[in-house]
Amino acid sequence: MAENSQSRSSRKSGRRRGGRSRQRKVVAAPAFIKRQIPFYEFLGEEGLNKLEDQAEWIIQEIGLEFRDDPNALEIWKSAGADVKGTRVRLDRGMARELCKTAPTEFTQHSRNPAKSVRIGGSSQVFAPVYGPPFIRDIKQGRRYGTYQDFENLVKIVSQLPSLHHSGLVIVEPCDLPVSKRHLDMVYAHMKFNDKPHLGAITEKSRAQDSVDMARILHGEAFMEENCVIMGNVNTNSPLLVDRVVTEAAQVYCGANQGLIVAPFILGGAMGPVTTAASIAQAFAEAMMVGAFTQLVRSGAPFVMGNFLSSMSLRTGAPTFGMPEPVISNLIIGQLARRLGVPLRCGGSLTASKLPDAQAAYESADSMLSTSLGGANFVLHAAGWLEGGLCTGYEKLVMDADRLGAYQVMLAGLPLDDNALARDAYVEVEPGGHFLGCAHTMANYETAYYEAALSDSNNVEQWEESGSKDTAQRAYERWNQLLKDYEAPALDESKDEALKEYVAKRKDEIPDAWY
Amino acid sequence: MAENSQSRSSRKSGRRRGGRSRQRKVVAAPAFIKRQIPFYEFLGEEGLNKLEDQAEWIIQEIGLEFRDDPNALEIWKSAGADVKGTRVRLDRGMARELCKTAPTEFTQHSRNPAKSVRIGGSSQVFAPVYGPPFIRDIKQGRRYGTYQDFENLVKIVSQLPSLHHSGLVIVEPCDLPVSKRHLDMVYAHMKFNDKPHLGAITEKSRAQDSVDMARILHGEAFMEENCVIMGNVNTNSPLLVDRVVTEAAQVYCGANQGLIVAPFILGGAMGPVTTAASIAQAFAEAMMVGAFTQLVRSGAPFVMGNFLSSMSLRTGAPTFGMPEPVISNLIIGQLARRLGVPLRCGGSLTASKLPDAQAAYESADSMLSTSLGGANFVLHAAGWLEGGLCTGYEKLVMDADRLGAYQVMLAGLPLDDNALARDAYVEVEPGGHFLGCAHTMANYETAYYEAALSDSNNVEQWEESGSKDTAQRAYERWNQLLKDYEAPALDESKDEALKEYVAKRKDEIPDAWY
Repeated sequence: MAENSQSRSSRKSGRRRGGRSRQRKVVAAPAFIKRQIPFYEFLGEEGLNKLEDQAEWIIQEIGLEFRDDPNALEIWKSAGADVKGTRVRLDRGMARELCKTAPTEFTQHSRNPAKSVRIGGSSQVFAPVYGPPFIRDIKQGRRYGTYQDFENLVKIVSQLPSLHHSGLVIVEPCDLPVSKRHLDMVYAHMKFNDKPHLGAITEKSRAQDSVDMARILHGEAFMEENCVIMGNVNTNSPLLVDRVVTEAAQVYCGANQGLIVAPFILGGAMGPVTTAASIAQAFAEAMMVGAFTQLVRSGAPFVMGNFLSSMSLRTGAPTFGMPEPVISNLIIGQLARRLGVPLRCGGSLTASKLPDAQAAYESADSMLSTSLGGANFVLHAAGWLEGGLCTGYEKLVMDADRLGAYQVMLAGLPLDDNALARDAYVEVEPGGHFLGCAHTMANYETAYYEAALSDSNNVEQWEESGSKDTAQRAYERWNQLLKDYEAPALDESKDEALKEYVAKRKDEIPDAWY
Repeated sequence: MAENSQSRSSRKSGRRRGGRSRQRKVVAAPAFIKRQIPFYEFLGEEGLNKLEDQAEWIIQEIGLEFRDDPNALEIWKSAGADVKGTRVRLDRGMARELCKTAPTEFTQHSRNPAKSVRIGGSSQVFAPVYGPPFIRDIKQGRRYGTYQDFENLVKIVSQLPSLHHSGLVIVEPCDLPVSKRHLDMVYAHMKFNDKPHLGAITEKSRAQDSVDMARILHGEAFMEENCVIMGNVNTNSPLLVDRVVTEAAQVYCGANQGLIVAPFILGGAMGPVTTAASIAQAFAEAMMVGAFTQLVRSGAPFVMGNFLSSMSLRTGAPTFGMPEPVISNLIIGQLARRLGVPLRCGGSLTASKLPDAQAAYESADSMLSTSLGGANFVLHAAGWLEGGLCTGYEKLVMDADRLGAYQVMLAGLPLDDNALARDAYVEVEPGGHFLGCAHTMANYETAYYEAALSDSNNVEQWEESGSKDTAQRAYERWNQLLKDYEAPALDESKDEALKEYVAKRKDEIPDAWY
């Protein structure tokens, strides 16, 4: 019997059965993923050595520029770096040696301890898109993000079990002054959500506000010993590190909090057009800033980031979900493990403007390779559209639905006696069917990942329910999530103290729109 | 600088440059993929041993039913199998031993030698969807497939470089009598296309017609020594092998041609609801039929197939692109390599009715794992919708566009001096840009995979060109391909002989619609 016609008949029998009473057990989602499958070793020893050698060559022979922060140059000089003007070079091996004091893995604590996440090793943590100024949904189209959108997104993310972390700038609240919006964003994450989140980095004072607000929420003593907040910075590739990065390192790592350093390289623009060179350059940049974080405070949590994009050769526009970044996701994981630090890379990336097939193909290839590559912290795991310029309401819940599937894959394959089901073959004769057998009845509730937004009905049922495409179903889902939202309890005195802090700082800071 | 805003500015500079004269070199597509990356070893030795042990247990203790073909039972008896009625059991290890004479890899020759494909080892061959009775495009919607659709699809496939093989039933030509349509289909593949293809299997005489037509095209002597056509059959899971399979084995393998044997298991229906059991069962079924092909003719090409689908636990409907089949794609590759036979599995599978985001997410996760798993022959690699009941015109070209990306990934990462680009770092200062540097100019034409259907333009450009989604762009593309189609030359005397054969057989066979 052909796979096609068979699927039709089984669908029918399944529908009958489904009509009765099959209900899936609700299984509490874990706070983060504990990976149970092997890492995929894409490159062999020789290839990895070549990339590491190239990174050391860059650091020793070319060096990195550290601009606009004399403090940073002083720190490098004291450590014995070769500093000429703003160019910093390190002897081969020195950056790697300095990175050794960074923890291989650490916990980012949440105000709800059940939602604290482990970052590094075989743990994987997914967080939403970060940074888009625009927002899109299928009814209202594309427009600048507002604070209302931002708060909506925090509330939706708080309810998506496959997002373990809420990130920070799920969309830019463009209706708030640039100089103050970080206060509203950090407060919203603390108030409306009890997953861990990031802090601001765009100015030193904003990073400091984030850390100060975290002190109100978590307590100063606790933070001396534990990570509760992190900053996420990009180097200014190629080989340029600006004040935003070095000041964020001083504020976050100085307070024993985490710093994620992600070189963003559009191959052919901020790095060479060949993928191997871009991987090595990104590794050199991240390792160098990682070394810097350890000079600021030995033992502070550092996450090596990587963000490689390819380019359309017809137009020069960045492309996403293409095979070159897919390969880089797999290789950079190997390099991070050899360096012994947690890795941020990948995400559900796309250049598409709409939550359509292009968006999904590109996001899936990007995210499956991210998952296989072992990325420990995945920013942009859901909601990214248009090369990161736009957050999609539908895209956010669509991606999150797929993230649940990666979680199942990463849990590996059970191979115990129940999984092998020999009793079922004794019960069910060749040519029979397993639908009603004891083994099926005992296992069906947890057997398969159930994708909320995938429509697997036959075409007649699908037409009866309105012939909706994925984006339409996703629109209904995010609206339902907003309706269902309930705020997690927050200690009233802490809430008051946070509000006071925000009010005081807003009084102090002038409105600015840049 | 943030990855988001950076991408915006680079897009601008890229656009200017793109406006000038960047044209991609046309690189001739290879006839099939020579994989250069390691296999991903998802399961360790212990897990693989467990699955192999389970398969042997099934074959020895439960056995398989071989129904409606007394010849098949005679073949088994002569080989020393334990045959009771229609139940056939083999001693542990016997099926595996018999499979040893099947070639580890072989060539399926095409009438155009440049398009012959290698099946097995590190080769990977992609073929379109097989079997749907329905067809859909975004303008005309869904309807039964016709011969005109079928011929259109053969012509489109012939022009898609990432499809190496044209399969057979890209859609069912439902307007032709069931008893005769195989003649029209096989002729169309031979006439309108010079890639290798499959033959019919639904009745013994139809399989024989396919082999006889191949003899006209390729010559009898050549076929005695070489594979030019294959049949693709499904066992009737669980553990039932019907006449369609055993007769196809006798016709195809008897003529030293290939047979692909793909158990189709919807977990919870045709196999246990646990993935490990379904993998082992599929392996047992395929290995047993593989052993049978070698009893028919030692050394005949055999491809071990695998088609596992999960199930919606809400409705009992089959689901595709979910983590359980993704895992099975990775594991079954390991089992096939240990058995030493080529593997067919996976594809761009989905339950979606439309070429929308669901279709793309599910297809991408299914197909990326298929590619990583090392599947040597991938049926359904493009065009599949609705659980295999419907072929999508747009889906066909959309999937094919993504297949090109997997091809690049499978080629691995160059790590030579040019790839490491040290000269570029000497030319481009930290903080500079690589767009115009010598290394970029020398490499950009072949640096990145260019996805024809991905729109990477900025939102303004995209809106100016009509705000088209992926499916709309795909509609334009397949129509353009049809317009551009030119038939490959076919020796006139062979063409005449094929037409005569078809006419004669159509006279002999009564019209039948079942």
